Amino acid sequence: MTSAAGAVSSSLWHKLIPVQIYGANTGSGKTVVSTILGTAFKSKFPYWRINYLKPVSTGPEIEADHSYVHRYTGITTKCLFEFKLPVSPHIAARDCFNIPPTDQEVLHEVSAALLEYSQAVPKEPRRYGVVLIETAGGVLSPGPFGTLQADLYRPLRLPVVLVGDHRLGGIAATISAYESLTLRGYDVEAILLFESGQLGNADYLTKYFRFRKVPVFELPKFPDSGDRSEVRLNLLHYYETVSQSDSISRLIIHLVSRQSRRIKDIEGMASRADSAIWHPFTQHKDRDKSSILTFDSAYGDFFQAYSPAKWKAPTHLELSLGGEDMKTRKVAISAVPTPVLEPTFDGSASWWTQGLGHGNPDLSLAAAYAAGRYGHVMFAGAVHQPALSLAERLLLGFKNPRLKKVFFSDNGSTGIEVGIKMALKASSVRYGWESSSTDIGIIGLKGSYHGDTIGAMDASEPSVYNKKVEWYRGRGYWFDYPQVKMRKGNWYVEPPAGMEAEFGPAQYYHSLDAVFDLKSRNASKYEQYIEGMLNWLIKFKGKKFGALVMEPVLLGAGGMIFVDPLFQRALVDVVRKSKLFAPPASSITSASSTADGSSLEWSGLPVVFDEVFTGLYRLGRFSSASFLQVHPDITVNAKLLTGGLLPLCTTIASQSIFDAFLSDDKTDALLHGHSYTAHAMGCHVANVSLEKMQEMERRNAWAKFIMRWRTMHATVVYPKFPWSMWSQKTVKLISQVSNVDSVITLGSVLAITLRDESGAGYTSNAANELRDKLLEGSQTYGWSVHSRVLGNILYLMTSLTTDRDTLLQLEEFLLRSVVEVHRESLSPKEVARRLFRKQRRLENKQKAKEAKRIAEERKRTTDEEEADG
Amino acid sequence: MTSAAGAVSSSLWHKLIPVQIYGANTGSGKTVVSTILGTAFKSKFPYWRINYLKPVSTGPEIEADHSYVHRYTGITTKCLFEFKLPVSPHIAARDCFNIPPTDQEVLHEVSAALLEYSQAVPKEPRRYGVVLIETAGGVLSPGPFGTLQADLYRPLRLPVVLVGDHRLGGIAATISAYESLTLRGYDVEAILLFESGQLGNADYLTKYFRFRKVPVFELPKFPDSGDRSEVRLNLLHYYETVSQSDSISRLIIHLVSRQSRRIKDIEGMASRADSAIWHPFTQHKDRDKSSILTFDSAYGDFFQAYSPAKWKAPTHLELSLGGEDMKTRKVAISAVPTPVLEPTFDGSASWWTQGLGHGNPDLSLAAAYAAGRYGHVMFAGAVHQPALSLAERLLLGFKNPRLKKVFFSDNGSTGIEVGIKMALKASSVRYGWESSSTDIGIIGLKGSYHGDTIGAMDASEPSVYNKKVEWYRGRGYWFDYPQVKMRKGNWYVEPPAGMEAEFGPAQYYHSLDAVFDLKSRNASKYEQYIEGMLNWLIKFKGKKFGALVMEPVLLGAGGMIFVDPLFQRALVDVVRKSKLFAPPASSITSASSTADGSSLEWSGLPVVFDEVFTGLYRLGRFSSASFLQVHPDITVNAKLLTGGLLPLCTTIASQSIFDAFLSDDKTDALLHGHSYTAHAMGCHVANVSLEKMQEMERRNAWAKFIMRWRTMHATVVYPKFPWSMWSQKTVKLISQVSNVDSVITLGSVLAITLRDESGAGYTSNAANELRDKLLEGSQTYGWSVHSRVLGNILYLMTSLTTDRDTLLQLEEFLLRSVVEVHRESLSPKEVARRLFRKQRRLENKQKAKEAKRIAEERKRTTDEEEADG
Repeated sequence: MTSAAGAVSSSLWHKLIPVQIYGANTGSGKTVVSTILGTAFKSKFPYWRINYLKPVSTGPEIEADHSYVHRYTGITTKCLFEFKLPVSPHIAARDCFNIPPTDQEVLHEVSAALLEYSQAVPKEPRRYGVVLIETAGGVLSPGPFGTLQADLYRPLRLPVVLVGDHRLGGIAATISAYESLTLRGYDVEAILLFESGQLGNADYLTKYFRFRKVPVFELPKFPDSGDRSEVRLNLLHYYETVSQSDSISRLIIHLVSRQSRRIKDIEGMASRADSAIWHPFTQHKDRDKSSILTFDSAYGDFFQAYSPAKWKAPTHLELSLGGEDMKTRKVAISAVPTPVLEPTFDGSASWWTQGLGHGNPDLSLAAAYAAGRYGHVMFAGAVHQPALSLAERLLLGFKNPRLKKVFFSDNGSTGIEVGIKMALKASSVRYGWESSSTDIGIIGLKGSYHGDTIGAMDASEPSVYNKKVEWYRGRGYWFDYPQVKMRKGNWYVEPPAGMEAEFGPAQYYHSLDAVFDLKSRNASKYEQYIEGMLNWLIKFKGKKFGALVMEPVLLGAGGMIFVDPLFQRALVDVVRKSKLFAPPASSITSASSTADGSSLEWSGLPVVFDEVFTGLYRLGRFSSASFLQVHPDITVNAKLLTGGLLPLCTTIASQSIFDAFLSDDKTDALLHGHSYTAHAMGCHVANVSLEKMQEMERRNAWAKFIMRWRTMHATVVYPKFPWSMWSQKTVKLISQVSNVDSVITLGSVLAITLRDESGAGYTSNAANELRDKLLEGSQTYGWSVHSRVLGNILYLMTSLTTDRDTLLQLEEFLLRSVVEVHRESLSPKEVARRLFRKQRRLENKQKAKEAKRIAEERKRTTDEEEADG
Repeated sequence: MTSAAGAVSSSLWHKLIPVQIYGANTGSGKTVVSTILGTAFKSKFPYWRINYLKPVSTGPEIEADHSYVHRYTGITTKCLFEFKLPVSPHIAARDCFNIPPTDQEVLHEVSAALLEYSQAVPKEPRRYGVVLIETAGGVLSPGPFGTLQADLYRPLRLPVVLVGDHRLGGIAATISAYESLTLRGYDVEAILLFESGQLGNADYLTKYFRFRKVPVFELPKFPDSGDRSEVRLNLLHYYETVSQSDSISRLIIHLVSRQSRRIKDIEGMASRADSAIWHPFTQHKDRDKSSILTFDSAYGDFFQAYSPAKWKAPTHLELSLGGEDMKTRKVAISAVPTPVLEPTFDGSASWWTQGLGHGNPDLSLAAAYAAGRYGHVMFAGAVHQPALSLAERLLLGFKNPRLKKVFFSDNGSTGIEVGIKMALKASSVRYGWESSSTDIGIIGLKGSYHGDTIGAMDASEPSVYNKKVEWYRGRGYWFDYPQVKMRKGNWYVEPPAGMEAEFGPAQYYHSLDAVFDLKSRNASKYEQYIEGMLNWLIKFKGKKFGALVMEPVLLGAGGMIFVDPLFQRALVDVVRKSKLFAPPASSITSASSTADGSSLEWSGLPVVFDEVFTGLYRLGRFSSASFLQVHPDITVNAKLLTGGLLPLCTTIASQSIFDAFLSDDKTDALLHGHSYTAHAMGCHVANVSLEKMQEMERRNAWAKFIMRWRTMHATVVYPKFPWSMWSQKTVKLISQVSNVDSVITLGSVLAITLRDESGAGYTSNAANELRDKLLEGSQTYGWSVHSRVLGNILYLMTSLTTDRDTLLQLEEFLLRSVVEVHRESLSPKEVARRLFRKQRRLENKQKAKEAKRIAEERKRTTDEEEADG
């Protein structure tokens, strides 16, 4: 079984020094440089193991680079994929094979070769292995499958030696190549180039890169061919001389010391972080500093992580897979030195932000473009194209005729404060309250969480998150409500304990689809309860409310609570219709209305949806409001807004909310605005990200996931039913493990509530064992899973581009881990039986579809259509 | 007088279509493409005016590109700078001249040529001018002065046609060149390249760029030279055929329609923004939508702005400068069609954020690198190198031995909330208060502003900014204090009206330096007042205070109030020493201490400095706390932290604050953390920015500004005294205009308080006339100034890289504008006398230093040392 995309093995070992040689241009001399480096390493460190690897070669074998390097250096050389045609690999490969090797195949072959080299390193101290990896063509030449080379190899993120171009135009070519590597997150460790005489390339580049801290090394001119018989002698002499030169000696030492410095840095970071950094949401007293993970980089769904707690000195690790009859790696491995970094699945989607994968080069370039075109430009009284396009795109995307005006801020918390300010002002104006002398609360749901700033905190009921914050004052009333849960493979809507009288008993539903079939369900019990409670609060307790604020469908930080959508729908309906909020007739301005005659004016109370977590495809849809079939008056979005790259938030309001701020007095305006309001970089990245996500929806990119959630009883047609990236089967299996209380899933989210006899909630540690198990990792796949827990709840979240292979493996690993930490019932035998039946099924399926997948991937790569490439 | 750096004339006219032709590589065929385009435009639009411009040419004249293009197209061609040596312009220019033409000279020649072309456009409707501007070498080949060509021409941001490379390796070269242009904010409108046979470059690039929305056009192979007599005929035939081809026809139409689309977009944006966007701090009722500025791009200190209110249809504008005997432009201009965009000085430093200039390519690349390497990665329980480096850099930079722990958030407002949470918790723990049941306030200063979220608002006293916000409750006490002001050329420290008894009468100071000489000044009056007031509040009113929160030296949004530093110092001293806050002895943990024995433990109350606006060189120093010679326990930084590119904030605390959160209960932790906490992009850009700013300080980059503030009585040695980017002379002159109440300046900030008989404050409109005058612009320099007002106060702010020429012009324009809007006294004659005396002096100085400046700039550019390149 091949590893998942992005989940390549680490490429960093203590004793192996890899150097990837990229050329600023074809013909800039990569092979000559490899030969020089090979000779130099060999002569300087005769007891080291020096290797040369050419992953992909084109052209006749006799002229192949690895043969040449071997001829002049004597070091062991290897080529992984050879194509005879002397053209770019993507042409040559198509000429040779029906299906050229995929990126994953190339990557894994390189990865396996590196692993092999790392094992062959001399055991003695101070003896190292070196591997020179020569790429083909220029930095961005296409690989065999058509992916740009620098993208293809990016998951390995090897240290780069860039061979600059010494010819006319070479300054431009070298700097551009450097920029292309840099914006993909590579570290260029050195630039080498040949003497260029009066062109002065090396002089210029040396100065240019001095201030970018990249050393430039000039090489003597490569000898002219001369008389054929002398060629070899000339060359031998050249390599001999150059490799012994001061300049190359310095380079060699530089490369070796950079590697050791890099590892030392990585190993020291947890401890330095422990000293300099105050981590968010962290009790530092408990915290062992060795538990701090160091992320060296990230790509796709995976971090490259160093964990001081996990890492052990190089030792013999058994990588074969016990008696479970699973395939082993292609490379037979008996003893492996531990790599420094481990691919680790980003199971919290980096606090629910990730949509299009880490290190996405399109988003990097988009960010750079906006920075280059604008930097940040003033937004008060002004506009720029990225902000305007984003506003228009969102207004269109929400398909909510109420929403008209987009306000920008920096994160979910600030955006919620803006939404609350908007709503309370609208209510105050309509109901004639004195702004700051009346205690106005909001209506919400128990377990809500809207952010960390005081105004956002005040919108949640007292809880562990806020009870110790000096300035927190919960302002409002928060309703109880029934929840959706899967228990033992079945979906239920359950009332809170002791509230069966109000909400009725737990109801079984044959599918998630049926839970969301709001038209077929009866809301009258809910509506009566809500109306009654509001009546009591307003009439008898004298409370004033200015807004209804809630997260549609899923309450995130509150514990991934899946609220019965019918209850939320009923709450909105009651608040909008109830006579409790009826205004003096005169104060309502003439209502605008939609084509179907429904009013766009807010009524009762402004309805604010906090879609920071749930919006923009986190739950599989552009807007999570659509699950409730409700049009809020105000909606707040952040997190996925920029595809997971940088902070940005929008609060979008209806015209009637906006109008409440219009006045002849300038202090009646919404006097809110952060310095970086609508920063061009965030807005442009958001446009590019949303376009990619919307495009994925249009071309049905999640069809494979969606289809697995189709039910016989579906009341809506494909793909309108609720679905999840996680397979229904896995979710059901997990819910059947005995220490699992319940499971929920929707879109990319999966949350497992574990039983905790000592009480649930944020302070519970019940999920920690499972979290630790996942972080320990799977030897089968060679990667681990980083996840977050909320008390007794462990949740996992994919990005929108997580591929099915990764997910298959992840589900299997998760299921296995859940079972391993389970405490009673379900005999190990039974567990194994279920698991392996499932696994065999998955394997068979996968085999059958492998050819199809490759064909599809080929199409995908060549078409360049995908966001997850 | 040449225009300021970045302030080049606009390059966008209704009827002139400029196309800048860049090559992916030397020899990719730019000149052939120019010839094809010239021929095609000419034959398709015989009544248009088609021009060709080669700004910089190297090599023998006979082979020059413009001669060639003229020979084969017959269109008018021009070359601005010709060098004989056939090498890169930076080498060729050095060979020809003692001092090669500077970037500004090249830019202004191109600009002037464009202006000339724009005037020569046929007057008839539907007849346009076209100018093809061919660059030299590759995209990043150095210009004559050594600056990379794409950086050199960036202020013009002309639409680009990129000539791709059709040779082996050309895919890589073309995409890299595209990326280098894109990260500098260029729009690549089309890519052209020659047939490349089996290499398949055009096929690949067409697909690759389809999803980036850049059309790719393939050109037939360029004919082989063949027999000499046939060359010309062959070529004529080639150009004839190719320029008539479908592909080139489509390209021509594409370029024309892109230009008209671009202008239409720009013209329509204010109106679309009015419809879709809710602007920050804006009363929309008053607002005429034509007042919304559209920023098409920005570079250095200048926006390229379109103002619907200002823009008039092309007409005859007099550009000569009246009778004031000033130099006119090199190009004689009598009538000019109005350009669509106008360079506009970013006078609010885009809400106080800008440090290193808009569109800084180093920051763009830094942002892209972090995005490419990490994207955003989870920060709870983890660390990455950019965040750690930034934390360590800040801890080092503040030179405050108390500060030990760095907490990250997204903006000043959230960072202040974090700081307040930290401080209040520390006080609650020490003084044994029940967290949320005690009303704990903060001590601050009247006129403070700490942000827009509720917690940050609550830290300010009731004011226009918050009085209408429903959830605002000012929590604390805010002191009155004396202010520093310049009146009629002299510095004073003035008590608030009616408080002479408490603070003594207004004091004259011979220099700003003397105001800051805290050791020589007597604080006892202040200390008595503060102690008395606190005693009354605590003992008699029963108030509880948990923190002292203030902006050191300058209160920004409160109206650029320059607080007497001695008062702030006294406030800290009293709060730290007063027995009013003495804790139960047992609750203080053993205090750590510095080498000199002073305690690092907080005492009295935690001191929180809001340096969001004042820190990181805004006032000329890394930390504005150093003006008070005080070490706060908590400090908050944002705005300039990323050099002005994207939102990021740090709240840095002492160990003793941090320790207050340590407990066996996880809910005692600081439960705060935004999704994008310590996002890699922000942290890395901050590292690069701070390094540049610190480097500027080390190499004394502001020496010219600083020297002008040296006084005879200086009590501290250069450059320790307070200084400003704004010249002392100008500041004094402005303060002498009769409708100016007072002026303050420090670092990059200048604020002018205008008299308003109907009352001062945020609701005043007194400064609007001056603001409008500045925005109207200077015909002398061809640019205008965007500024912000706070009621009757107009402020201006430079970046840290604003050059002296720009500032000279800006100061003159400002002074002239202040005088023009003044209402009484100071006869126009007197004003003119002063102004022109000043101006002559400035001009003479400038002439004398011109040679020196050029020599320095040469050094600067070649050394690539500067942040402001």
